[in-house]
Amino acid sequence: MSETNHAFKLAARPEGMPKRSDFEYVEEPIPEPGDGEILVKILYISLDPAMRGWMNDVRSYLPPVQIGEVMRAGGVGRVVKSNHPRFQVGDHLNGTFGVQEYVVSDGRGVIPVDPGAASLPTYLGILGMPGMTAYFGLLDICKPQAGETVVVSGAAGAVGAAVGQIARIKGCRVVGIAGGEEKCRYITEELGFDAAIDYKSQDVNKALKEHCPQGINVYFDNVGGDILDAALARLARGARIALCGAISQYNATGPVKGPSNYLSLLVNRGMMKGFLVFDYFDRYGDAAREMAGWLESGKLRAKEDVVEGLETFPDTLNKLFKGENMGKLVLKVADA
Amino acid sequence: MSETNHAFKLAARPEGMPKRSDFEYVEEPIPEPGDGEILVKILYISLDPAMRGWMNDVRSYLPPVQIGEVMRAGGVGRVVKSNHPRFQVGDHLNGTFGVQEYVVSDGRGVIPVDPGAASLPTYLGILGMPGMTAYFGLLDICKPQAGETVVVSGAAGAVGAAVGQIARIKGCRVVGIAGGEEKCRYITEELGFDAAIDYKSQDVNKALKEHCPQGINVYFDNVGGDILDAALARLARGARIALCGAISQYNATGPVKGPSNYLSLLVNRGMMKGFLVFDYFDRYGDAAREMAGWLESGKLRAKEDVVEGLETFPDTLNKLFKGENMGKLVLKVADA
Repeated sequence: MSETNHAFKLAARPEGMPKRSDFEYVEEPIPEPGDGEILVKILYISLDPAMRGWMNDVRSYLPPVQIGEVMRAGGVGRVVKSNHPRFQVGDHLNGTFGVQEYVVSDGRGVIPVDPGAASLPTYLGILGMPGMTAYFGLLDICKPQAGETVVVSGAAGAVGAAVGQIARIKGCRVVGIAGGEEKCRYITEELGFDAAIDYKSQDVNKALKEHCPQGINVYFDNVGGDILDAALARLARGARIALCGAISQYNATGPVKGPSNYLSLLVNRGMMKGFLVFDYFDRYGDAAREMAGWLESGKLRAKEDVVEGLETFPDTLNKLFKGENMGKLVLKVADA
Repeated sequence: MSETNHAFKLAARPEGMPKRSDFEYVEEPIPEPGDGEILVKILYISLDPAMRGWMNDVRSYLPPVQIGEVMRAGGVGRVVKSNHPRFQVGDHLNGTFGVQEYVVSDGRGVIPVDPGAASLPTYLGILGMPGMTAYFGLLDICKPQAGETVVVSGAAGAVGAAVGQIARIKGCRVVGIAGGEEKCRYITEELGFDAAIDYKSQDVNKALKEHCPQGINVYFDNVGGDILDAALARLARGARIALCGAISQYNATGPVKGPSNYLSLLVNRGMMKGFLVFDYFDRYGDAAREMAGWLESGKLRAKEDVVEGLETFPDTLNKLFKGENMGKLVLKVADA
């Protein structure tokens, strides 16, 4: 076992896209777990669009990461020392471990995972926060009915891919919006979406009109901006929109682009609701069991985009904002 | 009885604020009711912000008024000829009669009113569409709970004044946003709102912070634009927003201003829902009875801003968009 921990600490509040110099890469002694604590060796780190928001000094659903703090991130790791009655050395755990190699935890908020049942990156993807986000955001907020048309943006990303597949399982017609031919082929050919719209090469307004002749009953928004506006313009009566994120706006240096077509909600008696997956923590277990069942039966497919090397963190994170990842973006830190 | 009918017909699609020349004032023979029809002499015409939308050539919840058609408007009138088994000469009726003096109707969509129970303009205001809009928008969409903070914009208008008073009846703390000292005094001193914000002389963001220290639980939006953004910025967790209208945007010649702070819905798990009062037609009777009870007991106050003379229609309508009316704006066409 190494003697040192490497970590990325927030060094400056990014303006626009995060830069290497917004972080400090530090080498420090590995901390010792105290009474009731464990030392976790981090194996995989989850890279999520929400991390961009955590870097801003604004009141939000979680306190901002402070300058000088290890950058917040989810991850899976293995217990290497334990002074905690509930955890044994060798246990695999999912938790908010930060962008680093080792972390001391008191066990609050961590969830044991079984590396025999699914690969570790899957626990950061479809069986982890993105999967839960898709599950509760779609089923709880949007309540899709069989036969309805569901549109999802960021459709080849971790959340979007799960949303579309769950909607298919529920008997909906699913249209995904993604950037580039490869992603569009992936969601239709591999994931079974009914149609894909390539926002980089197609007119999204026109394409939505073509693929949603009866209008959009459910729109799951991961991106905001012009695509949210295009979806609003095509709502069916009684449409439900889940606001999950707005990745197109996270690096905006000016004001966020508000949805100019929001009055479509009025005309169509539509509903737009924001949600945070953390609020469903009590129900993660049931949802994960149902999702694991779908995975096993082949109804649901998982895909992770794994990049190796903690030291690549700033560049790898930006793959999200450049639309370069396909499936759940994960940073591999160690083999075992 | 006069031999002629005067009417305002739409002559051009307005750009920005409607102008006199966007209408044609015509004199025509009074039409004869056929079998199963009635002739109604219109006494009062309802002037509503929604009328601006009906002038635009866009797909909406009602077809646009066509060029050459009598401008659509609600009104109350008296039956002067009847070939209809359900209606007698002398009956007073509420219906979509248009901006004119006489109309032939087959009786569909008209509602009898009792001029002995309330004044005729009241049937266009708090006991009419604006009152129903307030009642269902607030109670059905927002579900306010006693002790919650309710904010309403356009608070001295027909809908806003009713929203605030109903919220008070339900035990909420009510903050109204209106333009000018007189309106602010009216809603606090005469209608019992807990606080008023004068958007013309105050910083709405600051004032909302002061008057809603625990955040906004319910926001009823009649105006859109910057005020919607200010309300979004102060949402409490689990807030509900009813989208009733966006009068600040109806005469915009460029794109509608989308709410830049819409991601507050995400952070605060908030919900924004559009609605149209017509969808509640089946329940108007019950609501009107409850509202009439509140009126009688003094819990609810009605105010109408009555302007005389059909020929003033274009200018009188624009009082709405200039914020010059207080209470329900009504055009008086005839005495009886």
